[in-house]
Formats: sequence, C-alpha cells, structure tokens
Amino acid sequence: MTAATAILQMICPDQPGLVRELSGWVAGNGGNIVHADHHSDQGAGLFLSRIEWQLEGFGLPREAIAPAAASLAERLGGEQRVTFSDQRPPVAIFVSKQDHCFLDLLWRMRTGELPMRVPLVVSNHPDLGSIAEEFGAQFAHVPINNANRQEAEARHLELLKEHGIELVILAKYMQVLTPAFLAAFDPPDAFHRVINIHHSFLPAFMGAQPYHRAWERGVKLIGATGHYVTDELDAGPIIAQSTVNVSHRDEVEDLIRKGRDTERLALARAVRLHLKRQVMVYRGRTAVFE
Amino acid sequence: MTAATAILQMICPDQPGLVRELSGWVAGNGGNIVHADHHSDQGAGLFLSRIEWQLEGFGLPREAIAPAAASLAERLGGEQRVTFSDQRPPVAIFVSKQDHCFLDLLWRMRTGELPMRVPLVVSNHPDLGSIAEEFGAQFAHVPINNANRQEAEARHLELLKEHGIELVILAKYMQVLTPAFLAAFDPPDAFHRVINIHHSFLPAFMGAQPYHRAWERGVKLIGATGHYVTDELDAGPIIAQSTVNVSHRDEVEDLIRKGRDTERLALARAVRLHLKRQVMVYRGRTAVFE
Amino acid sequence: MTAATAILQMICPDQPGLVRELSGWVAGNGGNIVHADHHSDQGAGLFLSRIEWQLEGFGLPREAIAPAAASLAERLGGEQRVTFSDQRPPVAIFVSKQDHCFLDLLWRMRTGELPMRVPLVVSNHPDLGSIAEEFGAQFAHVPINNANRQEAEARHLELLKEHGIELVILAKYMQVLTPAFLAAFDPPDAFHRVINIHHSFLPAFMGAQPYHRAWERGVKLIGATGHYVTDELDAGPIIAQSTVNVSHRDEVEDLIRKGRDTERLALARAVRLHLKRQVMVYRGRTAVFE
Amino acid sequence: MTAATAILQMICPDQPGLVRELSGWVAGNGGNIVHADHHSDQGAGLFLSRIEWQLEGFGLPREAIAPAAASLAERLGGEQRVTFSDQRPPVAIFVSKQDHCFLDLLWRMRTGELPMRVPLVVSNHPDLGSIAEEFGAQFAHVPINNANRQEAEARHLELLKEHGIELVILAKYMQVLTPAFLAAFDPPDAFHRVINIHHSFLPAFMGAQPYHRAWERGVKLIGATGHYVTDELDAGPIIAQSTVNVSHRDEVEDLIRKGRDTERLALARAVRLHLKRQVMVYRGRTAVFE
Repeated sequence: MTAATAILQMICPDQPGLVRELSGWVAGNGGNIVHADHHSDQGAGLFLSRIEWQLEGFGLPREAIAPAAASLAERLGGEQRVTFSDQRPPVAIFVSKQDHCFLDLLWRMRTGELPMRVPLVVSNHPDLGSIAEEFGAQFAHVPINNANRQEAEARHLELLKEHGIELVILAKYMQVLTPAFLAAFDPPDAFHRVINIHHSFLPAFMGAQPYHRAWERGVKLIGATGHYVTDELDAGPIIAQSTVNVSHRDEVEDLIRKGRDTERLALARAVRLHLKRQVMVYRGRTAVFE
Repeated sequence: MTAATAILQMICPDQPGLVRELSGWVAGNGGNIVHADHHSDQGAGLFLSRIEWQLEGFGLPREAIAPAAASLAERLGGEQRVTFSDQRPPVAIFVSKQDHCFLDLLWRMRTGELPMRVPLVVSNHPDLGSIAEEFGAQFAHVPINNANRQEAEARHLELLKEHGIELVILAKYMQVLTPAFLAAFDPPDAFHRVINIHHSFLPAFMGAQPYHRAWERGVKLIGATGHYVTDELDAGPIIAQSTVNVSHRDEVEDLIRKGRDTERLALARAVRLHLKRQVMVYRGRTAVFE
Repeated sequence: MTAATAILQMICPDQPGLVRELSGWVAGNGGNIVHADHHSDQGAGLFLSRIEWQLEGFGLPREAIAPAAASLAERLGGEQRVTFSDQRPPVAIFVSKQDHCFLDLLWRMRTGELPMRVPLVVSNHPDLGSIAEEFGAQFAHVPINNANRQEAEARHLELLKEHGIELVILAKYMQVLTPAFLAAFDPPDAFHRVINIHHSFLPAFMGAQPYHRAWERGVKLIGATGHYVTDELDAGPIIAQSTVNVSHRDEVEDLIRKGRDTERLALARAVRLHLKRQVMVYRGRTAVFE
Repeated sequence: MTAATAILQMICPDQPGLVRELSGWVAGNGGNIVHADHHSDQGAGLFLSRIEWQLEGFGLPREAIAPAAASLAERLGGEQRVTFSDQRPPVAIFVSKQDHCFLDLLWRMRTGELPMRVPLVVSNHPDLGSIAEEFGAQFAHVPINNANRQEAEARHLELLKEHGIELVILAKYMQVLTPAFLAAFDPPDAFHRVINIHHSFLPAFMGAQPYHRAWERGVKLIGATGHYVTDELDAGPIIAQSTVNVSHRDEVEDLIRKGRDTERLALARAVRLHLKRQVMVYRGRTAVFE
C-alpha cells in the first residue's frame, strides 16, 4: 500500500551545512523526502541524521545507494547505514520459560506492526519450542550454564550466522551475554544489534529480582526498560521505558503481573523503533526520531 | 547563555526538494542549523517546516531575514514567519475570577520557562487586579455581558493595539469571543493568535460545566485541552492535552481540584510550544515540532 | 497457594451502622476479613460494600452463605451477591475478525490473570474459529445482519444457556446487541453481565469509526473504554479507561495500531475487575474497589 | 459546607474481628461512618485501619474521643491517632533558594486544597523571605553549614516548638537533617512528621544532582518522589511518585524545567495525603487510603 522508501542514517562530526548536504544529496538524485530528522549533540560535537525518501523516481538503483552513502560518510568522517522500508530483516529471539514478551512479539510481527522475520528462536529451556515452531521458526534448545557457557555461545553464533540474523532480542532470556559473544555478533560501531527488556525503570533495580526489591522498597510505580545490550550489565543505551502505578495492596505477584504489561509495551516499542530505523546511539544514549 | 537563534516557519504546497531548498537557503547564507523539522501532509499536499539556526555568523542582518524569507515564501506559494529566540513577545492574559492558570503562567514567565512579556491583563471581574499589578501589568477591568459585548470587545481591541499584543491567552476567561473580535485580532492565516484552556479532553464535554458532566457520566479519567480559538466553540486546533485518573470516591469538587492541575499543565505546555514557535496549524489541526 | 475466600457484594439504602452490621455478620460467623471496602453515595442515599474473608474456619458451609446473605440483604432492603475466589465462572467471548483483544484475553486466562473459563466463542465471521478451538472453546459461527438479527440472537441465547454463561465479553464484536437480547440475558439489577471495549475515551467519539474521527479532529491523545453494555449505545457504566499519546506524524493506521494496545489494556482491566468482583454499579456509574 | 468528621488511624497486630471491633466502636457511639479503609500485611501480621465518621450526632464529645481511642489501642496492642477534618494543623516549610515547590504549597493552602496553616518558614538563605511574609509566616533565616549544624538545628527545634509545629515539609531545602534532629522532632512511632521531595523516581538517582545523572544515563523518563524522611538518606517511606517523559532533545536544563512540574505534583500529593490522614507507615513503606 505505502510505497517503498529508502532510509539513510548518518552519524558524523558536526559542522555547518550538513542538513543541506544530506538533503541536497537526496534531492539531487531526484528523491522526494518523506521524513528528515536531525540532532546535534553540542557537548560531543556530533551530528545525527535520519532521512527517508521515496524510492520511486529516485535516480540511483537500490544496490547503488549504500555505496554512494558510504562515500558520503567517508567524506564527512562518519558512519552510515542504508535500509529499505519494504525489507523484513531476520531476527532471532532468545527466550527462557516466560512467554508473554515472546508471544507479544510474534503477534505484532503477524499483524505487521513489527516489520521483521523470525527464522530462529534460541532457548536454554525446551518449554517454548512448540510456539516457535507454530510461527515457523527453528527452535534451538541450547542449555547453558556457567560451565558450558563458551560452547553454548559458540553454538549461538553459528546459528545466528546460519540464518543471517541482523538483530537479537532477549525476550526474558534471563542469561547474561558474555563480552566475547557481543564482540563477535555486535562489534562496537554506531549500530547496535542486541535488545533486552529489563523489568524495572532503569537505573533503579539493576540486576536480579527487581520486582521483589521494588516491593520491599515500597515504590508507588514500577516500570520496564527496553535497551541495547552492552558489556556492562543493565547499563546499555535506553530506547524505551514505561511505567505503571502500584499500591500497598499489590503483593510481589501483582507487581509481576502488572509488570508483564509494561514489559510487553516497552520491548515492543523498542523493537519497532529499531526496525523502523528510528533510533540512533551516541555517547551511550539514544536519539529517537519519531 | 544560549546564543540567539532565528526561526523560520514555512507552510507551502508540497513538492520535491523543499528540505534542500530551505536548508540550502540557510546554509547558503552561512547559517548553522540547530533544529530542522518538517512534515508533509499527503492528503492535503502541504509541506510544513520549522528551521532554527544560530544568528552568530549568519550572512544577513536581522532586519533582512524576514523580507528574504517572504520572497522565498512567495516563490513557493506559501506563508512564512521569522522570529528570534531572544525576543519576548507581548502577551495579554484574559481572566475571570479563578487564579490558578493565571498565577501559573506568571510564575513560569518569571522563571524564564515562558519567553514572553505580559503588559496587559483583561478581566470582566476586578478580583485578580492586584496580582496583575504585582507583576507589572496594566489591569483592564472591562465588565462584559450580552448587552454590551460589542463595546467591550471594541475596548479590548483598543487595548491590544495599544500594547502591540501578539498573543491572547484565555486563562479561564469563561466568555466566548465573537467572530467579529477574532476577525479583527486574529485574521485567518497560518498563524493563530488566541489560545484557550478547556477543562476537558476535547472533544468530550464541549461547552459548559465539563466537570459536572464528567462526574455524571462516571468517567475514570478527566482532562484538559490547550487549543487555538476559532469561530466554532471548542473546535479549534488542539495543541496539548493532559489527563488525570479519577475514581468513584471523587466528588465534583475533587474533579475540579484535580482538574486545576491538568489545566495548568496543558495550558502552560500549549503556550510554551506557541512561544517557542514549535506549533503550526493546517487543516484545523496542529503539527507540534519538539 | 492463596487460600480460598468468600466475597460478599451488597448494595442497599444508606443508614448508620452498616459497616458494623456487615463486618459483624462475617466476624460473628468466625470469618477473618481480608478486604473490606465501602462507598456511600450521598446524593442517592446508597451504600455499596464488598467484603472478602477467608473460607477456612468460617462457621457456615459454602452453600449456606448465599442464603444467609440474601436474608441480610432482604432486611437491609438491598441486593447482594456471594462468590468464591476459587471459582472460575464460564464466560463467552463474542468476536468479529480482529484478534488482538481476543488473543489477549485467552492469554491472560492461561496465565491465571483472569480467573475464568471460556467454553464458548461466538462470531458473525468464521475467521477466528481455529484460535477458539485451540483454547478448547466451542466456536459458534452465527452470521448476523439486520434481516436475521432476531433469530441470530435467539441462537446466541440458547448457546449462552447451554453453557451456563455468566459473563459475555464483546471483544471487538462490532455489532450492537438489541434491548431484547439484553433483557433476556442481563436483566436490570445491580450486577451487569455484558462488557464491551469501545475504541475511544468515552464519551468522546461515541459510535462508529472513532479513530478516523480522532484523526480528523487532531487530538493529541486517543483512548479506549471498557464498559458494561446497556440499551443506550456506548452509554453504559464505565469500568476502565486508558489513553496513549499521538502526534501529527500518526496517520489513521497508526492510531489504529496504537489503539490496539490501549484496547487490550482497558478491556483486560475491566474484565479482571469484574471477575475479582471489584466493580459495582449504581446510578449508571461504577465503584471500583481495589 | 462539608460537615466535620473524626478520623481514627489504628495500627496493631492482626487478628480476626478487627474491622467489626473498630466499626462497632464507632457505631456503638452513634457515629455514621463516611469512609472505612483497612489493610492487612500478612507477612508482618499487621493490621492498619483508617475510619472516618461524622461528628454530628456522635455520642462522645471531641475531647473524649482520643482518650477512648487510646484505651482501644492499648487493648489491641497498637498505636492510634485521632484527628478532625476541620483542623488545620501548623506546618513549617523549610526552603533554600528555589521557590517553585514553596509557592505551589502556599497557593494550594490558600485555595483550601491543603488543610494546614504555615506559621513558620525556615531557610538557610534569605531569598524567599518576602514570599513567606506575604503569606503571614515568620521567616527564620538560619544559615547552616557543617561547622554550625548543631546550633542551627537547635534553633530549628526551638522554632518548631514555639509554633507547635506538627509537620515539617522540606520544599527543596537541599540540606540533610541529622539523626539527632529527627530523634528530637520526629521520634520513631507509626506517625512520621517530616516530608521531603526528592527530584528522581527513587530509588533511581539517590543523592545529589539526579537530573544531571539522569541526563548522563539517557533515561526516557524522569520523576519525583514525595517521601517521609528517616535517618537513611533518600530511603524513607515513599508516599507519592510522578514521572514525565523526556527525549534526546532535552538538555539538563530541560530536565530541570520539566522536573519542576513533577516535583510540585508529587510533593503536593504527598502533603495532601498526609494532611487528610490517608497515609500510614509500616515496615518502611506506606499504605495510601484513597
């Protein structure tokens, strides 16, 4: 229905004339810009841009756009990525035993809210295998513990490569990824490749059992945080957060129940922003263009 | 502290190349763009743009910018407005007897949140005169009723002209402005000049006594709407809305009390967006660039 | 895990001593009260109460509690209902073609969030039959239109009776129930039996196509309302409402997408409150005890 | 307009029959109960109750109610407090240089939202003296630093005693109260006497400069927390929390600006709940009855 568009994301040192430069490059090739968002971080001297234009009538063929953008980025001393709105990138979902985020992602994929494919589901438990298969994904049951973590992650990397996975979503995976795994799958550049849902409004209640600790502390709201994963636990760039009110009548199990809704919303929102290429990372934080 | 910027707002028929055109005009004159926001309304074939750039180093002197932008707008068949971030435009506040929105606006002006001056306060009641004077405003007590509405509004127009007022804020004024008044003070173009706060989440409970009707209906949330005023009552373009939860324990007076907070927040937000030139009107609705 | 409780809901004319009367009745029979909530509506002279106590150690056997409560209600000139926390009442879900609310309810039933059984799903379209059957429900495809409405609703009533249905949930059913159907299934007393989800924050956008009209009006937030159904369209007692922010960048399809989340949340909340017996109706409005 | 009521707050070991006991005591003296709220903390075996009844027609004179409640509490092994809705207890506000919370509290006092008197304002800076005096309060400028803290707090205690202060509100006071001061003014019992506003959603960003740290962390929402003060910094029982969304476009100064609104709302809500006797403390947390 909606015509296909190209999306250029660029991050480079700030200098006068960049908006003209980028919009000029698109317009110079006959592109009709649909959205153009920019952000300058004064402190770091960085310029971030996301430009989306209609492919129809554009002077360059698809396969020539990324190389052209790469030249542009090289000249500006920055990093870039070109994607197309009609692509549905291959995503792997890592799960454990809880199904609420997992089902929610699959359901949103099916309705078209999340433009992605899920050829691969990885889990350290067998419980969610039938759901994965129902949605046409390979279900890889890879038990993991401190003793076999290295081999298990090697197997993960193999699977990710096999399926050409672009994004890993930790949907209540309950395991910490090692720096070695991240270095291999998600090398440090401007574009992150692993999203996690943490069940608190970070930085409150980092680490384990946030709902129990929230109950103990007697907070009046709980939350959830969708964020990119980095080497430092629960410290990666935050993409989306949501909260819900709680009261003294709520026991820990009520917090967990209410939390499932905020988790689903925050994770779905983070993943959608990623897939729509509306989120960019700089200085350990995100710019969200919407 | 923050260096002064120029802000160009443009609304014109959509066509390819407009982002390049506008950013090119700024950059071509040596301007360093701080923010650039655009919106295309496909249905109406309209393009809306807000570009903000640093005045320091810009090739044109201040007084030459608006004429240059006017030429640009003429060529594009659109409307434009140029303003400067260090200006504090003269604003008139119309009040009745309730002081919560009025005091809130004055307090936010004093802290610098609202970049405006308030040389004039108009009221059909004498009650808030001392507050107006304390903040250095002329307090014009103009009793108004159906019999003298024409003369009273003529007096209003005189006062507005005298003080060079750019924006009128109805802060619980509780009177309807006539089409004649609006035609005189706020002629129909892309830039509106009267903001009202309505004490419901429009379009629910248009008209009188929204809190009483909300209580009768048994709603679980109430709200407030900051909007531009047009000839049609409570039907003008919406700028900002906020809501708050209510319960069966809340009587009408509790709704009124809770409502005061949402009213203050929605009105302050609407006025700030207007003064920061972050709101543009098209097709009876607003684009809010922030 | 949690011990079973009895729940008494009582609505009667207000008079001094009612809290003592009701709590005294429970305590007099050796009941340990877990929750006791009351509300007096001064205007109508009504008293509403919900008392929940542990069944263990209670002096009356289960089957004797309702008759005893009925005597109490008769003496107080009111209406009452006794239920037990370990019951899972039979619920019918009426659907059309959209699955988001339907799936959400079934998922929450499975996790235990919604203490109900769903032996029956009714639809005027065949689309969601396989989901219904997957969850063990009879799927009754009953095409309905203005010509056959009477026969179709007669068939509905038969099915509801057959399954002993206590509550009907309209999960995007998109059909209006006739007064005759309501009179038969949900006779006018203090306890309603049909819940609907309306896709706006009522009373805004009553009737058809609320998202299209919300977009036209240019609102900055949209919402959803879970409410009991009465003869008057979209005017029944409101149980739960939720909202979400929208912007000028959202097209109608974005409102529909965002709306799905608010619809799911508002409906799930309304249904849970009903099943937990935390909602009581009086004067066309609800008291929500939580 | 509203008739005066008595409010009994009781906290005691849980046992069957307490709701009957307390409501029976009120009803036995001819009291008509307006609100009755209870909470049982299973883990701690505690019962908390708040009962409010009309004074008109009550069998005991005002001065006899507290002694009678004290006997009741003694028998139940608990603590109690009796207050009256038409009392306006004397409150001291401690401030520093920022006026937003201070002005907001005074304004809400004047409208009747906060049933209190403010005979005393204490500050370590002279800046807000004229506002205090305008509202009829004594302004005590008591410079405080690490060297003179003991003498300064002795002076504070003198002033609090002199004015018979019941509640101290730290409205951006920016100083830590010593354990000695708290022991003297707010001895450890069930009813706390010092409320603070912290400018983050605790427990995130405890300590200094929460907005700077929130900006550094790149959170997508900021918040404020109204809480009782205890010896442990920012760890006292939470009464109310509120949040507001932020984006990458918000600089630290924008967070501070937006934070002012959440601070005002969370503090006003916490103070109102305290003054309405709707908050009770147990196990380092609060039950909020509303």
